[in-house]
Amino acid sequence: MYVVNYNKRELKDVEMAGSQKVTVRWLIGRQTGAKTYAMRIFEIAPGGIVPIHTHPEEHEIFVLNGKAKMLGDIEATAKKDDVVFVPSNEPHGYDNTEGKDIFRFICVIPLLNGE
Amino acid sequence: MYVVNYNKRELKDVEMAGSQKVTVRWLIGRQTGAKTYAMRIFEIAPGGIVPIHTHPEEHEIFVLNGKAKMLGDIEATAKKDDVVFVPSNEPHGYDNTEGKDIFRFICVIPLLNGE
Repeated sequence: MYVVNYNKRELKDVEMAGSQKVTVRWLIGRQTGAKTYAMRIFEIAPGGIVPIHTHPEEHEIFVLNGKAKMLGDIEATAKKDDVVFVPSNEPHGYDNTEGKDIFRFICVIPLLNGE
Repeated sequence: MYVVNYNKRELKDVEMAGSQKVTVRWLIGRQTGAKTYAMRIFEIAPGGIVPIHTHPEEHEIFVLNGKAKMLGDIEATAKKDDVVFVPSNEPHGYDNTEGKDIFRFICVIPLLNGE
């Protein structure tokens, strides 16, 4: 067992095409104990966005701070204390371009490809 | 995709032997899209405890509120913004008997047995 503050995990910029002002920390990944799924924390600064994209990994998300417009098959805003589920291969994105606060969320994904 | 506030999920008492003042909500379970792992939220009220127990399911935990003493192989307190990893079959528990705040945390587990 271990306990670690999330700020101790390495902060990385998200380099995905079209992403702006987005960072990620891998909280529990394969090298730190994850067996079949991993926990990450993302931050999208005000003015930032993760554009619509698609991949096989489903997302189990819990919003910690702020709010953002969900991009994809629904018209919805996700805010603090909301849960978001993105099924496998469903187009999705997160738009904080009009936000005033950091949109911070936990995102759990399966480790499908040996990451 | 869906977005739902965690308070919309059914609140259940945790009935595990020795647990006191503990509730759980299944945020994303098999019936709501989870394929191989599930996201729950637990609350342990001040004075409450989850005693040491063991099972095959590892835990990936993120603490949302309060603090609690971790029971098991380490002497540690987990508090807001901490990440906790409990490996498979490792004895663990959470003690909020001396706390003044609700200890609230996200806990992700694998769906090993068809829950």
